[in-house]
Amino acid sequence: MKQLINSSGHIRQQLLAGLTYTYNDKLDWQTGTGIVTKKLIPENKVVLISGGGCGHEPAHVGYIGENMLDCAVMGAIFEPPTSIEILQAIEQTYNGHGTLLIIKNFEKDLASFLEAERLAKAKGLLVSHVIVDDDCSIESGTFEKRRRGVAGTVFVHKILGAAASAGNSLDELQALGEALIPMIKTLGVAFSPASPIGLVPQQYELAEDEMYFGIGIHGEPGYRIETMQSSERIAIELVNKLKQQYTRKELTRAAILVNGLGGIPLLELSIFMNDVQQLLDIEDIEVGYKRMGNFLTAYNTNGLSLTLLAIKDHKWLDYLSVPTDAFGWR
Amino acid sequence: MKQLINSSGHIRQQLLAGLTYTYNDKLDWQTGTGIVTKKLIPENKVVLISGGGCGHEPAHVGYIGENMLDCAVMGAIFEPPTSIEILQAIEQTYNGHGTLLIIKNFEKDLASFLEAERLAKAKGLLVSHVIVDDDCSIESGTFEKRRRGVAGTVFVHKILGAAASAGNSLDELQALGEALIPMIKTLGVAFSPASPIGLVPQQYELAEDEMYFGIGIHGEPGYRIETMQSSERIAIELVNKLKQQYTRKELTRAAILVNGLGGIPLLELSIFMNDVQQLLDIEDIEVGYKRMGNFLTAYNTNGLSLTLLAIKDHKWLDYLSVPTDAFGWR
Repeated sequence: MKQLINSSGHIRQQLLAGLTYTYNDKLDWQTGTGIVTKKLIPENKVVLISGGGCGHEPAHVGYIGENMLDCAVMGAIFEPPTSIEILQAIEQTYNGHGTLLIIKNFEKDLASFLEAERLAKAKGLLVSHVIVDDDCSIESGTFEKRRRGVAGTVFVHKILGAAASAGNSLDELQALGEALIPMIKTLGVAFSPASPIGLVPQQYELAEDEMYFGIGIHGEPGYRIETMQSSERIAIELVNKLKQQYTRKELTRAAILVNGLGGIPLLELSIFMNDVQQLLDIEDIEVGYKRMGNFLTAYNTNGLSLTLLAIKDHKWLDYLSVPTDAFGWR
Repeated sequence: MKQLINSSGHIRQQLLAGLTYTYNDKLDWQTGTGIVTKKLIPENKVVLISGGGCGHEPAHVGYIGENMLDCAVMGAIFEPPTSIEILQAIEQTYNGHGTLLIIKNFEKDLASFLEAERLAKAKGLLVSHVIVDDDCSIESGTFEKRRRGVAGTVFVHKILGAAASAGNSLDELQALGEALIPMIKTLGVAFSPASPIGLVPQQYELAEDEMYFGIGIHGEPGYRIETMQSSERIAIELVNKLKQQYTRKELTRAAILVNGLGGIPLLELSIFMNDVQQLLDIEDIEVGYKRMGNFLTAYNTNGLSLTLLAIKDHKWLDYLSVPTDAFGWR
């Protein structure tokens, strides 16, 4: 796998420079840091901050915009930002209405973001957080659930973002997040692994006719390697596994996200979406909202994930539908 | 290269089903055909139709929307639709203000679209066309310019689309297209070729350390194979070659498009965009508009193209900036 990079210079720097140049009508980047913010931080609502490692583009910079995030703090490839940079971001965007951190459930991300929250609170700032753990993959040995934060995170960005703009307080947003997140379930599959990049090695190999269920968004291995299957059969596996995470009553109405992992063409995502739709039709699950594209990628992984969000409250659908100018969502 | 497809059924059918299901609030698809239209064809403006083979997603279905196309007619993978289907599309969307066809400059596309225009005119309909030929690649033997219609086509969709909504007549739109198209220049590069799909074979091989300048959007070979280079050096080659297509005076202000060919991650496009920006800065070329992402792909080609549009008329920038809900543009 060839890579269009430069031998000198930091990947994070060049990536954020390119992204924020492209969208410089909307985004501000503090050169040399991983902090990207809206041009103007709103004064009348709770500030929403997310972030994590680079390599998931358009996440999370792509979700900065009206009715979504106010700021994203990005680390090196697949490495969360430091607590110092997150604290800096919290302080610089603070408007007195409080700040909510949206954290993907990975040990290192939690350590950085929660330490930043602790430091900010010690300075008297109002800060809170929600932890997204939508991944339904399991450890292949122990069958333990992995509960990582993956593509479903963008539903959290969107719904909490719209709710923040609608005037919800920090406590209300946290409560909304805590009601919402258990209803979001994601499962991924890879046909080729992410290439090594930066300091990140390639973590597994797949033969020419193999695929891997349950892989992660940093190139982590999954729970089962199988012979490459048709789009339809993969859709059956993912829909069935996701369905099992809910009671039948919970899953009468859903939002769905077909997410490309960075190295899969839209043609194939569309074919897969068509198969998913037919399965949900048969199951009599009403699809109230749907998205397809590259939302939270694993660098150049040839693969995809499917996310279901069981709609417990009609407001969630309204929030999903509120327009935003965030470039990753559109 | 593995493919997420199904062994039975037509790829075009499943692709268009998936796309139009995802955007069924905006698009109508006539099942079994390649014709996709806006839910409501506007009654008060010239109708804009484009199309071509599948495999270029989000083109062209993704450019149906407010201030862009009204209809896209899609053929099999990398094969234009038949003149019969194009004629059907012209007739079904006809509103009395005339219809403009936006055609990419390939022999087969021209044959289908111009025959459809002829048939429609014979029925008394007002139809005209523009031919996009932005590719600056050359034949490696003869050095003859190829002049294919490639990624710059989406600038034509956007500018003519906004001009049509602004009330331009069919003649005015054709004249605008003919002034605009010579100012659009594109050059592509591939790091890995498009995989074979449907009836389309793989057309060239690249070694692990090779790249190919001047490739086409149907997996066609380019004009020079080189050892894989850094993003910066590739940017220098593309910017230099494109610059040579203009007089210095023409190129004081430009719109740029960094287009992924379907199998390249946004991280790499962003790094490349950063390099392009620095070169244009040095050249003192003012960038009045910029876009980055997968706009007109060559199935899953790992590669990209760079498009320059020399701005002769400030209105072109205004038209580029007019909002649209077309899902491929946003």
